[in-house]
Amino acid sequence: MGLAQFLYAARKLNNIGRWASDFMHIRASVSEHSFFVTQVAQMLGMIEEEHGNSVNWEKLYKKALNHDVVEAFTGDILSNVKNMTPKMKTAVDDIENMIADELLFSKMEPPYRDMYRDMIFDGKDESLEGQILRYSDNIDAMLECLTETKLGNNPPFKKKYSEIREKLKKSPLTSVQFFIEKVLPEYEELLE
Amino acid sequence: MGLAQFLYAARKLNNIGRWASDFMHIRASVSEHSFFVTQVAQMLGMIEEEHGNSVNWEKLYKKALNHDVVEAFTGDILSNVKNMTPKMKTAVDDIENMIADELLFSKMEPPYRDMYRDMIFDGKDESLEGQILRYSDNIDAMLECLTETKLGNNPPFKKKYSEIREKLKKSPLTSVQFFIEKVLPEYEELLE
Amino acid sequence: MGLAQFLYAARKLNNIGRWASDFMHIRASVSEHSFFVTQVAQMLGMIEEEHGNSVNWEKLYKKALNHDVVEAFTGDILSNVKNMTPKMKTAVDDIENMIADELLFSKMEPPYRDMYRDMIFDGKDESLEGQILRYSDNIDAMLECLTETKLGNNPPFKKKYSEIREKLKKSPLTSVQFFIEKVLPEYEELLE
Amino acid sequence: MGLAQFLYAARKLNNIGRWASDFMHIRASVSEHSFFVTQVAQMLGMIEEEHGNSVNWEKLYKKALNHDVVEAFTGDILSNVKNMTPKMKTAVDDIENMIADELLFSKMEPPYRDMYRDMIFDGKDESLEGQILRYSDNIDAMLECLTETKLGNNPPFKKKYSEIREKLKKSPLTSVQFFIEKVLPEYEELLE
Amino acid sequence: MGLAQFLYAARKLNNIGRWASDFMHIRASVSEHSFFVTQVAQMLGMIEEEHGNSVNWEKLYKKALNHDVVEAFTGDILSNVKNMTPKMKTAVDDIENMIADELLFSKMEPPYRDMYRDMIFDGKDESLEGQILRYSDNIDAMLECLTETKLGNNPPFKKKYSEIREKLKKSPLTSVQFFIEKVLPEYEELLE
Amino acid sequence: MGLAQFLYAARKLNNIGRWASDFMHIRASVSEHSFFVTQVAQMLGMIEEEHGNSVNWEKLYKKALNHDVVEAFTGDILSNVKNMTPKMKTAVDDIENMIADELLFSKMEPPYRDMYRDMIFDGKDESLEGQILRYSDNIDAMLECLTETKLGNNPPFKKKYSEIREKLKKSPLTSVQFFIEKVLPEYEELLE
Repeated sequence: MGLAQFLYAARKLNNIGRWASDFMHIRASVSEHSFFVTQVAQMLGMIEEEHGNSVNWEKLYKKALNHDVVEAFTGDILSNVKNMTPKMKTAVDDIENMIADELLFSKMEPPYRDMYRDMIFDGKDESLEGQILRYSDNIDAMLECLTETKLGNNPPFKKKYSEIREKLKKSPLTSVQFFIEKVLPEYEELLE
Repeated sequence: MGLAQFLYAARKLNNIGRWASDFMHIRASVSEHSFFVTQVAQMLGMIEEEHGNSVNWEKLYKKALNHDVVEAFTGDILSNVKNMTPKMKTAVDDIENMIADELLFSKMEPPYRDMYRDMIFDGKDESLEGQILRYSDNIDAMLECLTETKLGNNPPFKKKYSEIREKLKKSPLTSVQFFIEKVLPEYEELLE
Repeated sequence: MGLAQFLYAARKLNNIGRWASDFMHIRASVSEHSFFVTQVAQMLGMIEEEHGNSVNWEKLYKKALNHDVVEAFTGDILSNVKNMTPKMKTAVDDIENMIADELLFSKMEPPYRDMYRDMIFDGKDESLEGQILRYSDNIDAMLECLTETKLGNNPPFKKKYSEIREKLKKSPLTSVQFFIEKVLPEYEELLE
Repeated sequence: MGLAQFLYAARKLNNIGRWASDFMHIRASVSEHSFFVTQVAQMLGMIEEEHGNSVNWEKLYKKALNHDVVEAFTGDILSNVKNMTPKMKTAVDDIENMIADELLFSKMEPPYRDMYRDMIFDGKDESLEGQILRYSDNIDAMLECLTETKLGNNPPFKKKYSEIREKLKKSPLTSVQFFIEKVLPEYEELLE
Repeated sequence: MGLAQFLYAARKLNNIGRWASDFMHIRASVSEHSFFVTQVAQMLGMIEEEHGNSVNWEKLYKKALNHDVVEAFTGDILSNVKNMTPKMKTAVDDIENMIADELLFSKMEPPYRDMYRDMIFDGKDESLEGQILRYSDNIDAMLECLTETKLGNNPPFKKKYSEIREKLKKSPLTSVQFFIEKVLPEYEELLE
Repeated sequence: MGLAQFLYAARKLNNIGRWASDFMHIRASVSEHSFFVTQVAQMLGMIEEEHGNSVNWEKLYKKALNHDVVEAFTGDILSNVKNMTPKMKTAVDDIENMIADELLFSKMEPPYRDMYRDMIFDGKDESLEGQILRYSDNIDAMLECLTETKLGNNPPFKKKYSEIREKLKKSPLTSVQFFIEKVLPEYEELLE
């Protein structure tokens, strides 16, 4: 069948820590990251709707919940490495596809195989939901960096915090602007 | 605003371990539990649809993702204690409502307050989605017990595993029957 | 017999962390808390005697050592929740009594049952020893908050530290006044 | 004053793990060990009194609670090393006395210095209370070994479990015989 | 200068766990792995010399100690992924070289840059020392798998243990044959 | 044979934490310490050679890698205790020798016994390599103290950092002076 293999892979995300090689006071597992990214995506979606934009909720939740399941096979580090050059991104994407085919989908029957393949790849497309996922992923990383910095763990988190915040400020999404202007200052206050 | 308080509460679920007082080889945080319950709910939903039943996906994801956020204020233990007698369940439900009002919603503006209040309470109602959530919560607990038992940690997990499996066998849901008959044996094999 | 059940319960206190939902640099288990509260109670007792007050040492040690054994069944969180309103305190006390009867004392023979029941309930009465226990519990919490604050972990520990210290300053006990004036400043210095 | 130094030393016992160099599924801190040894001593004392022997409770609690405070300065390992030969025991005892004088008592005023010095040294004398402490220390170690063995962690815990049980069987104390015959089998059952 | 960057990178190996996505009772850091691989290499070297083969010790130690320093930048997972296909191995090797140049060597002055570059790349060449390193890396992994299996953690460690042992049996090195025949059975006995 | 016993002892260094009784944000195991000391020794050796001094690399690596293996039997604490007085140093040295003979070398055949005995004792002699080991051990401790201090964990690490740095400044070795003047400031910058 292969459905058990999918759940077993999702469970393995508990064993994988984020930001592999840096010391952290609070290291989140990839499961915890996935939970929180989905929470942020849910909040951005609610804000979008309050501002008159329509959200495909099924699509948004599917993208957010499953966007890092493939890390069960490749680990968290690749996502950092992959952003170094376009060539690396291609190489890593290829590796992820090959591994998921070999270890996960080869054992899974349709129609589940097709549904799950859609869910775990290409989450960050240019649809509103794809963009919300991408920025939610960034917001989670930014809040992690902020928390480490407030706890006195500066390198490399202080610098990364500023970089991500600057990047988010340039986002065209209403909900991201709302988050940076209204939610982030409140969150920062809670950590002081 | 109060939105930051909600995210901050969700983040606290990383700090709370499940099954508070028993030794576990692998202790999941409430965030990891919430992630996995949502994964199981997603799978049961897909199975329901494959068998011709229609699922409200937005409702299902909202119920599953947020069903334990209130534990940020009350801890995980109450959910165990609350099942001892109906009187206790009422007392604990009252406590949870009072605390969430006091610590979370008092600071949040409408319409977010109303939306979030719906999401974090009364998730396990008698709709199909409410039932899927309740059984997904059970399935997660069952798989945790199974894993501990396979790792040689018998009390109290061996007994609890059998109890939950028996309970699930009596479920009227197609997807739960499918899970017990087709997915569980495969999952067990992966642990051997 | 039931004596093994009591020891087994006491052992479970190793698995339960204090301050469940907040991040801590140093999280004490309930066993470690019980050990330290008994150390503080012993010190306050010595100070009381040095100032001419007589202490019933058997009573003091029994109260301090066993005051949180019931948390093996209810977890640490209830003690925080219970202080919200008098109604909640009553509800939680009821729950603790029912659970201890069900899971612990039903299997224990007299006279041990009666002796242990006295030890694990009603420790914080208005006798000198009961008051010493209550303030020792506070002092342990205050020193935990102080330690977190010194390590740069401010919320919620900085605020709680001040609250507890103010509360202790109002204590009528000679030993508590002595502690705040003579011991606390020295302890603070050791953390700098 | 020096009282803060004593509490600070007691707190450090949270940082020291027992059985330093062997892998354990559940490693207790020296604080947790001290708490549990005092629980066992309390139980043995109750059993002694039920069998007509009189216990000096103040003396028993003081011995049990404080018997390992000196490990804050010397670590847990010395207690293992010290039993190799009588010459080593003398050397280690000398070291412990010198260190406690240097780091703890030199700063403490009488009468606290004298009271604390009595409490942390020579606990395991030949009085009934001294013997109860020695056997309680053994019982804690035996139950730790038993727990590891039940969890599948055999070397060196399986062998040590048998050795300690045999040693306890030869104890002249009524309460120890009662523990081995009545309490231990029940405890073992709880782990199966 | 860049020498501090090298030490800082080596220190980061403490933060990276081996076998990223599988649960382990005992997870070694990459530093601990590097230490142990160097210990095994030292033993194999001693055995080779006892059997009349000459070892270049400087070369052997340099290869073994530094063989995983690059994982400070790429994480442990790549070493698993890289063995899937030759194409992947090439891609990963390219990535490692680019990252080390960018993050480490660009800041380091000659002659240290050249010496360190030699040490962290191409360790597993076909010289006797390169072969000893490759087999020492395998022996460490085999002993980790053996330990997990003895502790009751079977998948995937039981199967991997057999695979690696079979692979080692085919090694042409005298010291590896000696290890499998003489040392491994003794080691296995120590775990029983 | 006894070779397995040696590896098994080296493996136990993973279980032993450094600086036993003080809280640390980042506690290194003795394996991690040994790895890093060997890295520092390698760097000092390279610097010595760049300044025209000749290094016996085989000797240096053997000293550094194996200098704490004996702690598998005696724990980390003795090395701290032993520096209190010359009499204590002698007593601890005696203990270490007796234990290593009893538990390790009694089972090992020559010539391995003689080679290993040389490696694990008397590493810090007055040869250039012995001095490099001694200072590398100090440098590792200094960098650990520096890291804790930068993370806000002052006592006792701030004071120890200054003490060790002052001691190193008095070293006659070229490489140590180079390290303090050129490498340490860069390392400090990386932590800010």
